Amino acid sequence: MARVYNFSAGPSTLPTAVLEKARDELLDWGGTGMSVMEMSHRSKAYVGIAEQAEADFRALLAVPADYKVLFLPGGATGQFAAIPMNLLRGKTKTCYVNTGIWSEKAIAEAKLYSEVLIAASSKDNQHTAIPARADWKLDAEAAYLHYTSNETIGGVEFHSVPDSEGLPLVCDMSSDILSRPVDVAQYALIYAGAQKNMGPAGIAIVVVREDVLGQTLPFTPSIFDYKKQAENGSMLNTPPTYNWYLLGLVLEWLKEQGGLAAIEALNTRKADKLYAAIDNSPFYSNPVDPACRSRMNVPFRIANTDLEKTFLAEAKAAGLVNLEGHRSVGGFRASIYNAMPEAGVDALVDFMAGFEKQHG
Amino acid sequence: MARVYNFSAGPSTLPTAVLEKARDELLDWGGTGMSVMEMSHRSKAYVGIAEQAEADFRALLAVPADYKVLFLPGGATGQFAAIPMNLLRGKTKTCYVNTGIWSEKAIAEAKLYSEVLIAASSKDNQHTAIPARADWKLDAEAAYLHYTSNETIGGVEFHSVPDSEGLPLVCDMSSDILSRPVDVAQYALIYAGAQKNMGPAGIAIVVVREDVLGQTLPFTPSIFDYKKQAENGSMLNTPPTYNWYLLGLVLEWLKEQGGLAAIEALNTRKADKLYAAIDNSPFYSNPVDPACRSRMNVPFRIANTDLEKTFLAEAKAAGLVNLEGHRSVGGFRASIYNAMPEAGVDALVDFMAGFEKQHG
Repeated sequence: MARVYNFSAGPSTLPTAVLEKARDELLDWGGTGMSVMEMSHRSKAYVGIAEQAEADFRALLAVPADYKVLFLPGGATGQFAAIPMNLLRGKTKTCYVNTGIWSEKAIAEAKLYSEVLIAASSKDNQHTAIPARADWKLDAEAAYLHYTSNETIGGVEFHSVPDSEGLPLVCDMSSDILSRPVDVAQYALIYAGAQKNMGPAGIAIVVVREDVLGQTLPFTPSIFDYKKQAENGSMLNTPPTYNWYLLGLVLEWLKEQGGLAAIEALNTRKADKLYAAIDNSPFYSNPVDPACRSRMNVPFRIANTDLEKTFLAEAKAAGLVNLEGHRSVGGFRASIYNAMPEAGVDALVDFMAGFEKQHG
Repeated sequence: MARVYNFSAGPSTLPTAVLEKARDELLDWGGTGMSVMEMSHRSKAYVGIAEQAEADFRALLAVPADYKVLFLPGGATGQFAAIPMNLLRGKTKTCYVNTGIWSEKAIAEAKLYSEVLIAASSKDNQHTAIPARADWKLDAEAAYLHYTSNETIGGVEFHSVPDSEGLPLVCDMSSDILSRPVDVAQYALIYAGAQKNMGPAGIAIVVVREDVLGQTLPFTPSIFDYKKQAENGSMLNTPPTYNWYLLGLVLEWLKEQGGLAAIEALNTRKADKLYAAIDNSPFYSNPVDPACRSRMNVPFRIANTDLEKTFLAEAKAAGLVNLEGHRSVGGFRASIYNAMPEAGVDALVDFMAGFEKQHG
């Protein structure tokens, strides 16, 4: 059938042009007579692919020279453990901000390695607003301050970098990395699983300032030892080669779109259209504080929950799929990452208007 | 260009039919209007793909019902750490057999977690023979006995299951899994990275008997906690979904080939042809004890090393690529995993004969 508009929160839609390129060179990359997935990671062809992806990532995000960019197996959940293992550096405490389910998962894992201090939490308001920075409580003895820049389930996103009072700042950007320019120099470490905004699942990127490396806990698995991986160009072991290649194709596509400033303008326009459709209607609602609404994941509801199944079925029939809200919150959710074309958002907005007209 | 015969040790060649299928459904799997890599791992379509792969793996390897089959991110190197973390179960010692470079990597990682006793080692004979079982020294207090069924660099393979004197037996089968039938019931745990015989890099399979689960070290990253992953169908976190799907296509192909008995017959025939070409020639040599020669990786040499570059260049021109020996041992190596067609081995044997005629 024709390609659908896929609003899945992750793994999520990829640019059609990227998939077409992957398809066209699947059996023979660049005249080598083999697929990228059949290449030794030590081969000249593959090393070129890997290095190009790193160079493109560095250029897109303007990563300063004193940061390492690591391509590691697994996703963010592996890094939830790796981060304290690498960054405790003799300390015992860590600070985490809780703005939703992904924060909570990171916190649970950090507790295996450290005493976790919750600097702030939006749990009491069901994660519909980010606690005012003035109310956060940090501990100067903590190894770092961790936050989640975008929560895919609550639909809450930081739109500025929080002051960390001198603590090394660590951010899980899994669901909004590369959706806008970021001042990397404000962070000790940024990490992200690929499967929202960068590529298929199975690979994560860690951007880490060199000066925090080298004091891993003694029981750190080598594949998660940032220092060892940095010294080996992320090839201490065989990396997820095909995932890395596909991620590289997405980066190439992103450059063709004009880079992060251009994609941010597009993402803002897409999100503004969708929130306007919700806010300008008595039929739809979104509970999130407008100051921290996510441009990536837009949860919304209708008052008459009996109509939810009908909405989803009719949307699907119109080629708009995976609009179910997360099972923990219900309702609907449209994930509109970089790869969701504006035409997809337009089609959703049109569908919502039509549905309201019919059922509102 | 035309597809080459790719003798890479890993990542390695995949069945052309598998790649063609992946290509044909890359943008639209089964009429869903999306690529497998764009599917939520919780979606009905993707769960079906994942479950089919597990069912096929279980059927092919005849995995008993009291074993879990886990699909985990990363490759064998991650499991080098995960195995002691999961299987020490209050003990402090482990036993490892050293038959080559992969054994040594597993041992180095196990030392982060346990006192490693080397039960036997072929280091003194440059890993060209497996030490006689009668000479192994095991410790009844060890948590398990670990060995590597096939060493890709030395080209040494176990052709029977060693007696573990009642210790739980653990085997790294990364480079010969699914190349022949295996009596799983003799093992507490079998593991393998995918990128030799099962699919692209970035995913590993762990087959583990349920009774050894549940006593992980407290600092085990959740993604490597076998019990937690088993309870969550290997989806505690987002798995490497596309890698899992491709692995499933390889399993489907393997069923079409007639299963493991059929593929073993083919692998034996391929290896016999290549070893015969080496042994029947004064020009080529292989240093490995015939009793433990690998059917997967065949290292060979020529006396006049000045001719090595010419051999590789002419082979490449004939469409036979990645025949360089590992940098640590030099010479040549032909990896002839399941996916290497017999025609590829025939072409190599012919080429070797021609080269000998010209230069011998």
